[in-house]
Amino acid sequence: MRIRVISLDIDGTITYRDRTLSIEALKAIRLAERLGLPVMLVTGNSVPFAEAAAVFIGTSGPVIAEDGGALSIRGEGTMRKRVFLANMDEEWILWSELKRRFPEAELSFSMMERKAGLVITRKIPVEVVRTVIRELGLNLTAVDSGFAIHVKKPWINKGRGIEKACEFLGISPKEVAHVGDGENDLDAFRVVGYRVAIAHAPESLKEKADYVTEKPYGDGGAEAIMHILRKFGYLGEGDDSQEGNP
Amino acid sequence: MRIRVISLDIDGTITYRDRTLSIEALKAIRLAERLGLPVMLVTGNSVPFAEAAAVFIGTSGPVIAEDGGALSIRGEGTMRKRVFLANMDEEWILWSELKRRFPEAELSFSMMERKAGLVITRKIPVEVVRTVIRELGLNLTAVDSGFAIHVKKPWINKGRGIEKACEFLGISPKEVAHVGDGENDLDAFRVVGYRVAIAHAPESLKEKADYVTEKPYGDGGAEAIMHILRKFGYLGEGDDSQEGNP
Repeated sequence: MRIRVISLDIDGTITYRDRTLSIEALKAIRLAERLGLPVMLVTGNSVPFAEAAAVFIGTSGPVIAEDGGALSIRGEGTMRKRVFLANMDEEWILWSELKRRFPEAELSFSMMERKAGLVITRKIPVEVVRTVIRELGLNLTAVDSGFAIHVKKPWINKGRGIEKACEFLGISPKEVAHVGDGENDLDAFRVVGYRVAIAHAPESLKEKADYVTEKPYGDGGAEAIMHILRKFGYLGEGDDSQEGNP
Repeated sequence: MRIRVISLDIDGTITYRDRTLSIEALKAIRLAERLGLPVMLVTGNSVPFAEAAAVFIGTSGPVIAEDGGALSIRGEGTMRKRVFLANMDEEWILWSELKRRFPEAELSFSMMERKAGLVITRKIPVEVVRTVIRELGLNLTAVDSGFAIHVKKPWINKGRGIEKACEFLGISPKEVAHVGDGENDLDAFRVVGYRVAIAHAPESLKEKADYVTEKPYGDGGAEAIMHILRKFGYLGEGDDSQEGNP
């Protein structure tokens, strides 16, 4: 098996618990890029948020945002090509009805830059959102991330985003190694060739992993990347040079 | 004089030349935050881009985006309050006329998330944009950043953004130390209490600086922060501990 790209969840995988970037993970990602293994970032956040991560970290692969619903691919210079895999047709129908029934309902501030799904603050419970989806007969799913309620098409997920990114790269998803720490990384695990779960991930994810890190959060992310670099021949077994500066 | 907040330009000041984040600058910023000196990021980029920087780096101050035209202030949990200091009334009038005369004219992909100014790709020259602004009698300025053409109200600049951020913080701009490397940092220098220019900044900026770093780019940004921490009593003269990990 050959692994040609790493795909990395952001929150909890390359960050500390407080969402700040782990310096160890940052160094490991830059090492992977220097060794010729491009990195794709995958996140539930919006496209410009994910693009900023790619710029600051220095990843060369496509970024996958909105939980698989949107892609951003590097073009010439600072240009980027953005691709949205879904529109918001049914989402806005849902939103008008929610707002009519629950005037206290509130969109996330990030809706300004989202195009592939709805994010609602937790002022109304996810069960209520699901009930309205059912009553209106809409083909949507609602998930409470703990921070907000995410509503999207059921076929939009990290796995679909990775498949689409691979089309652009001209590779098979089986040539991707994915690293993540959440339930929603299961969708990525289903399509890729190699799977790494971070130590603090739920059992449901660890069960499906080819490798589980010893360390949690960003340190685990760094460990995962080093493991992949060694396992797939990008780095000698004894070599663990981690210089992160260009 | 008391300095209570640092404001930092992003590109070139806390990054390497290729726009990736400098690990030295990252460590210095986290040290400043731990020592009780909050950091505000200031950038020409969009609000979600700037917010991502604040989250990944771990800055607690407001972020100032769109070259001073937009602010984002931390709320509870992951919530943020966004404030836009300008609208796009005259900008869209300009854009319709530009597009009519020059069908090849193209908006930046980042216009999806911008609200306080127009960014146009360099397919048409900045002189042409200025001519049309003059002919239509619009109160707008156009600047070629080298990457794109930025069009905005003449009173929108980094200094105005810092003043507005200080209103939210309840402090005077004179209690802010600003660090930057570009011509547009002059507007910030005019309102703050202490000014640092990075080694590679243009002479016009260095002339107005209270301190010019020895090192360029992110290493210079780290040097600037350490200088401010010592100069204003946040760190002993001999102390240069720079641990960046929480």
